[in-house]
Amino acid sequence: MGFPMAAHLARAAVPGDRTLVWNRTFSKAQAHAAQYGTQAASLEEVAQADFIFSCLPTSAEVDELIARLRAHLKSGAWWIDCTSGHPAAAPRQATELAALGVRFIDAPVSGGVAGAGEGRLTVMLGGPEADVAAVLPRLAFAGKAVRVGDTGAGFAVKAMNNALLAATLWATGESLAVLARSGVELGAALEVINASSGRSNASENLIAQRVLTRQFPPTFALGLLAKDAGIALDMVQAVGGSAPLLAQTAGLVRGAAHLIGAKQDHTAALKLIEQMNGVELK
Amino acid sequence: MGFPMAAHLARAAVPGDRTLVWNRTFSKAQAHAAQYGTQAASLEEVAQADFIFSCLPTSAEVDELIARLRAHLKSGAWWIDCTSGHPAAAPRQATELAALGVRFIDAPVSGGVAGAGEGRLTVMLGGPEADVAAVLPRLAFAGKAVRVGDTGAGFAVKAMNNALLAATLWATGESLAVLARSGVELGAALEVINASSGRSNASENLIAQRVLTRQFPPTFALGLLAKDAGIALDMVQAVGGSAPLLAQTAGLVRGAAHLIGAKQDHTAALKLIEQMNGVELK
Amino acid sequence: MGFPMAAHLARAAVPGDRTLVWNRTFSKAQAHAAQYGTQAASLEEVAQADFIFSCLPTSAEVDELIARLRAHLKSGAWWIDCTSGHPAAAPRQATELAALGVRFIDAPVSGGVAGAGEGRLTVMLGGPEADVAAVLPRLAFAGKAVRVGDTGAGFAVKAMNNALLAATLWATGESLAVLARSGVELGAALEVINASSGRSNASENLIAQRVLTRQFPPTFALGLLAKDAGIALDMVQAVGGSAPLLAQTAGLVRGAAHLIGAKQDHTAALKLIEQMNGVELK
Amino acid sequence: MGFPMAAHLARAAVPGDRTLVWNRTFSKAQAHAAQYGTQAASLEEVAQADFIFSCLPTSAEVDELIARLRAHLKSGAWWIDCTSGHPAAAPRQATELAALGVRFIDAPVSGGVAGAGEGRLTVMLGGPEADVAAVLPRLAFAGKAVRVGDTGAGFAVKAMNNALLAATLWATGESLAVLARSGVELGAALEVINASSGRSNASENLIAQRVLTRQFPPTFALGLLAKDAGIALDMVQAVGGSAPLLAQTAGLVRGAAHLIGAKQDHTAALKLIEQMNGVELK
Repeated sequence: MGFPMAAHLARAAVPGDRTLVWNRTFSKAQAHAAQYGTQAASLEEVAQADFIFSCLPTSAEVDELIARLRAHLKSGAWWIDCTSGHPAAAPRQATELAALGVRFIDAPVSGGVAGAGEGRLTVMLGGPEADVAAVLPRLAFAGKAVRVGDTGAGFAVKAMNNALLAATLWATGESLAVLARSGVELGAALEVINASSGRSNASENLIAQRVLTRQFPPTFALGLLAKDAGIALDMVQAVGGSAPLLAQTAGLVRGAAHLIGAKQDHTAALKLIEQMNGVELK
Repeated sequence: MGFPMAAHLARAAVPGDRTLVWNRTFSKAQAHAAQYGTQAASLEEVAQADFIFSCLPTSAEVDELIARLRAHLKSGAWWIDCTSGHPAAAPRQATELAALGVRFIDAPVSGGVAGAGEGRLTVMLGGPEADVAAVLPRLAFAGKAVRVGDTGAGFAVKAMNNALLAATLWATGESLAVLARSGVELGAALEVINASSGRSNASENLIAQRVLTRQFPPTFALGLLAKDAGIALDMVQAVGGSAPLLAQTAGLVRGAAHLIGAKQDHTAALKLIEQMNGVELK
Repeated sequence: MGFPMAAHLARAAVPGDRTLVWNRTFSKAQAHAAQYGTQAASLEEVAQADFIFSCLPTSAEVDELIARLRAHLKSGAWWIDCTSGHPAAAPRQATELAALGVRFIDAPVSGGVAGAGEGRLTVMLGGPEADVAAVLPRLAFAGKAVRVGDTGAGFAVKAMNNALLAATLWATGESLAVLARSGVELGAALEVINASSGRSNASENLIAQRVLTRQFPPTFALGLLAKDAGIALDMVQAVGGSAPLLAQTAGLVRGAAHLIGAKQDHTAALKLIEQMNGVELK
Repeated sequence: MGFPMAAHLARAAVPGDRTLVWNRTFSKAQAHAAQYGTQAASLEEVAQADFIFSCLPTSAEVDELIARLRAHLKSGAWWIDCTSGHPAAAPRQATELAALGVRFIDAPVSGGVAGAGEGRLTVMLGGPEADVAAVLPRLAFAGKAVRVGDTGAGFAVKAMNNALLAATLWATGESLAVLARSGVELGAALEVINASSGRSNASENLIAQRVLTRQFPPTFALGLLAKDAGIALDMVQAVGGSAPLLAQTAGLVRGAAHLIGAKQDHTAALKLIEQMNGVELK
């Protein structure tokens, strides 16, 4: 995700500004520099930026990154974290960075690699109103950017969005498995569902392209979807809420990650549904 | 639903053809005739039509209608049933009508009263290929019409579509209830979800308009959604399938119908989620 | 089941009475005769009995049996069906037999092969009060026999009992999988649970003996448990009820039957839980 | 719970030993002293005990108690916490107390007020083997006491036990609601289930006495059951496990606590099932 996102940041940079890129694998940063005119930099160098963007698998990796950068951070800087992080991590990270004069904004994104490439990601921002307003003009990769609340609210909405992705994906998979066993042609069924009230992003954009084609191209990992559905469940617990359907979904998706493989594409979760129904979705 | 659908049939009628309308309450048929140039007719008269369209709450009412019309039906006619019927009823009804020389097509629709008014309903058809091809040009109320399989397949896909409507509606309601308890502004959350991967027809078109406004306008009854989710569950049972998420959904929606009221709009199911979370979605 | 049950009937027979046994495989009936002093008989002969006991996999096999026996049945006889049958089948079967002067009692049993051997099965009877009272003294294999309602009520309670067996078995399996991943010793955990408020027949008598030993001895097939949980779900549907937990259970157990194997012992359902948790229960 | 538990501790005390009791409401401690020959004491006094027993609603109250006692604790003492605590709290509490020379054992109990009165509680202990062995002879209120693992394992098993209580209670409630709608007599149904494979502590000891009698005597609060089912769910999350049935249960029970009332007896959760089925369990 970070690769195309950083490209948009570079394109939007005002003359005189530099766009530094860092990656665990330095050659990837160099490739980015060669392709987009950015500069491959060390962690110490990126720590000196005015606007730091991070996009990592989980909040745990962000914690590690903060630990490595903290000695080098510049007071007055902004840290915009695009990770699908944990709402409980955000206030802690914000407090830690505030002590160094750095303002933390949680700004997870939705839209996938394709949306990142086209610069039309949806960004959900959490943080004080003025801080969010200050970073909004900098989100060159965004098609839509909305403040949804205070620190952590961005992560919260992203987790719930992905829990809904999991629920719609799974429910649609179940419905197709039963239709397949009933002798209905799945392509036709999906076509009308996508023009009807049961449609969702999962039915419109994921299942026809990734499941019925049997390709399951690995873009967003099943293990990360299970992680996000789990964050949503942590939120339910944190507020003493009741969400039995999302709770079941989290359990099933986690089960699929164990049984099918956490590194498979998230749509491969439907392979567990296939095995539980003795049928193939095609 | 039938009122605007019949209006489209009348508009599309070739010169010389008559469009007869019947309703349990004769004055409704007369009002239709006055408004659209159709003819209010008795059951005996409509039984003589070349193309009979029915759109009733459940297959049970269609069975009653067939019983009342059977003595008057014309051999060579077509019966197109737009009811959200039961897949198990269709083969039985088709066989019964075939004995009278009448061909039965299951052709349930999606799109609601609004879609019916604009003549852009989605129609999912079940029946032999040639029969479906013969009636396709007659579906003047359709924006999209697709044959999904043999007799009963239309009902099957419609039931699954509505089960998915129930699942997406309920899951989105749970996510908003937890976000509300977490202090997130629901309008903003819904705005970004609707531009993200967790979006669905329920999140895009139902919740903002019907739930957050607290209006719950009664168009599609909660009791009928529970009925359809139940038909989907009957299908799971009939094929020995496994659909634990749809199964839970059917149970929750049926529970909401008992607790909130079967005649409420289907989106009022979320009032049960509100009560189970001690929060209001607004 | 039928083998030891018939042995008890033979033991309890009054002098002069004969106990006829029939089996699809005649040599099994002969073995029973040799061992217990019963008489291996043809279907035509057993059809002439005063009290006919049947114990088959599903109501479908009972329907077949009735079809084969009907020409030979004796007016005034009783048909006691110990099958875990379908509540919807019972009134139909009772009506069909009543036309021949034969009274049908649904009398499913619980207790397994062990309970059958010891003559302490629990029998749940459905039928008119006087009819049930008349057959009660004949249930020589029963440790407990209770009339639970009219025709079909026996099947209904048995289906719900087995749905509860499925739910307790599955829930306990989930809890042990998570405890195993948490590093808790399962034998000790099960010991205290069995002395605490979360205990059930599944935790007390099934999991320690069949799962933790890794033996899963095939007595009651997983496919039959899935069938019974499905009958319970049919009942929910038939009365317009709401049972989301039993509904999910039915889906999971059916999924396990597809994925693990319908002929495995019912406790092997927990192998799916193991695979969904990446852990072994031992 | 603590009242009768402390009575057993006093009865079992060796001559010369004192049993000190403390309660937020001092008069309760005085009443205990008058009735059982214990001594009502201040927090500072009980902090000096060799064996400290705590039994509070949640781990949060234990944290508060540790904070209030810490300045007064005696090195070499034991702290046995009988709270239904959180497994994640135990290692933290153990570490904090170890720094003061005090050994912490998690020792939650099952058996209710009745079991406490009769001194036959089940105690599930977590902690180092030697430490558990040292406190075992002191558990005068126990009918059974088993070490289930290291620090926190006791809380873990208790949480899972109560999650199973919730699941069996809810599932049995659903089955009875559907049987009631099917016209089956619930007392008879429960009688045979309790002699069959679907039985559980919930079906045998709770529903007949508390639900069918419509008394719902408030002993163990619904809010605490929801809390415990939530702890079980936290455990699922902590180990990346899959437990969709327990997850749904936690959601339903939490929903019942919001809708029916957290202070109602835990069996009153079934009132939500009744409302979702339009039927009363009696």
